[in-house]
Amino acid sequence: MCELLGMSANVPTDICFSFTGLIQRGGVTGKHKDGWGIAFYENKGCRSFHDPNPSAHSPVSHFVKSYPIKSRIVISHIRQANHGRICLENTHPFIRELWGKNWVFAHNGQLKAIKKWALTHYHPVGTTDSEHAFCWLMSQIQQRFPQPPKNKKTLWRFIYQCCTQLQQLGVYNMLFSDSQYLYVFCSTKLCSITRRAPFGTAQLIDTEMVVDFQQETQANDVVTVVATQRLTEEAEWECFQTGEFRVLKAGEVMWQKTNAAQADT
Amino acid sequence: MCELLGMSANVPTDICFSFTGLIQRGGVTGKHKDGWGIAFYENKGCRSFHDPNPSAHSPVSHFVKSYPIKSRIVISHIRQANHGRICLENTHPFIRELWGKNWVFAHNGQLKAIKKWALTHYHPVGTTDSEHAFCWLMSQIQQRFPQPPKNKKTLWRFIYQCCTQLQQLGVYNMLFSDSQYLYVFCSTKLCSITRRAPFGTAQLIDTEMVVDFQQETQANDVVTVVATQRLTEEAEWECFQTGEFRVLKAGEVMWQKTNAAQADT
Repeated sequence: MCELLGMSANVPTDICFSFTGLIQRGGVTGKHKDGWGIAFYENKGCRSFHDPNPSAHSPVSHFVKSYPIKSRIVISHIRQANHGRICLENTHPFIRELWGKNWVFAHNGQLKAIKKWALTHYHPVGTTDSEHAFCWLMSQIQQRFPQPPKNKKTLWRFIYQCCTQLQQLGVYNMLFSDSQYLYVFCSTKLCSITRRAPFGTAQLIDTEMVVDFQQETQANDVVTVVATQRLTEEAEWECFQTGEFRVLKAGEVMWQKTNAAQADT
Repeated sequence: MCELLGMSANVPTDICFSFTGLIQRGGVTGKHKDGWGIAFYENKGCRSFHDPNPSAHSPVSHFVKSYPIKSRIVISHIRQANHGRICLENTHPFIRELWGKNWVFAHNGQLKAIKKWALTHYHPVGTTDSEHAFCWLMSQIQQRFPQPPKNKKTLWRFIYQCCTQLQQLGVYNMLFSDSQYLYVFCSTKLCSITRRAPFGTAQLIDTEMVVDFQQETQANDVVTVVATQRLTEEAEWECFQTGEFRVLKAGEVMWQKTNAAQADT
C-alpha cells in the first residue's frame, strides 16, 4: 500500500513539516520505497515533482523539503508498488486538464479489474490501476459535464457517486483536486487534523522534529492536513469513516457524505 | 520574446551544460526574467519544473542545473512576457495527454488573434497566446486522429501543416514532443548543433564555463541541441530556414520540410 498526504489551507502555506514526516516512510520508517510525488497548486497553476527513487533518499525530495513552496492545496503520495513497475510514469500524483483547470489525483489501494472499465477522453500513460481509475473518473466527469455545472453540488454529488463505484472494486482512498477544492474519499484509512488559533506545537512521529505553529502562522490561518496515517503526536487527529467523502476549501469542510447519513451537511 | 532550448539524444543525456548557459539569459545576459520551465522525458514519463521567478535567480533552476537528470528528449523555455501576466500557469512548457502519451510544447513568438481559433478537447489553464496555440494544435491532432495513425509520416505531415497555419498569425518558433520524437518548427529564429564522435570542448557564450564532451560521452553518442540563439562558441551551429520543420529522434533528423523544397528527405 501507499501513503497519501493532502493539505487544504486558507492562506498559502508550506507543507515542509508534514512532508518531512511523510518522506521518512519512503525507506526509513516505512517500506514505501517505490517512488513519490507531490503537486502544489498556486492559484490555477500547478507545480509538481515526481521521482521513482525512494523519497527518504531522493535529492528531489530533499530539495522540496528544504524549499518552502507556499500553496493552498497540496497532494502528495509515496508509493509501494503493487500494480505497475517502478518508473516515472507510474508515480502519483497524476495530472490532467479539464475545463481549463489542472486536476490532480493520488490513490491508495488496489482496484481489481479496473482496466476493463472503458475510457473516453483520458488515457493512462503508465500501467497502474490508479491512473486507470483517474482516467475513468475524468472521462466520467467530462462526459457528464462537457461544461462545468452551474451548481457546484451537482459536481460534488457526481464525484461522490463515482468514488462509491470505484470503491466496489477494492480499496479506494483518494485525494483529488480541481485547483479550487480538495476532494477526499476514504475507503479504509484516512485521517485529518485541522489547525487554527490558538496554535500549539507538534512533534513528528517519523523523525525527531518539532514545530511551533504559533511562530509560523497568523491568527486567522486555518490548515487541514489529511493523511493515510497520522503524522504527529497531536491528539486532534480524527479518522474518516469507510465510504466518507469530504469537499474541503480553505481548510474547512464545505460538503460531506457518509454511508451512514446520506444527508448533505 | 522568449528563449527556447531543446535536446534530442540517442542515450539518456543530461542538459546541465546547455541549461546553465540558457538560464543566464533569464536576468543576467538576457531580459527573459518572467519565468522559465523545463520538461525531461524519461521513456514515457515526463518530469517538469516550472517557476515564475527569473531563471538566473531561481532556487529551482539552481537545483535543476546541479542535479543531472538524464533524458533523451528535453524541452526548456525562458519567458519574456508579452501576452499573459507573470504566473505559474503562464509558464512554458505546457503538457497535455493524448493516446496515453505526454505531449510537451514550448513557443517563441506572438500569434495575433489566435484566441479566436476554436478548441475542442484541450483548453488553456493560463492566458497566453502560446498555450491557446498548443491547445488548438492538440485539438486538431485529436480530432483528425482519434487513434494514432499507422503511418508516422501521416502524423508528421499533419503537424507540419498545422505549424504553417499557426505561422500565418505571426511568429511561431516551436519545440514539441510526444515522448518519441522532437518536433521543431522555425518561423524566424532557431539553430541547432549535433555533437558526435570525435567530441571536442565547448565554451558557453553566456557564462564562463567550458566542457570537454570527450570526458562525458561514449563513442556512439549523438546529441542534438536546438536553441533560439546559439549557446556555445562552436562553429558548427547551423540556422534553420524560415518555415523549416524537422522531426528528430535519437539526435538525428528523421524527416524534414522546408518552404523551398517540399520533398521528403
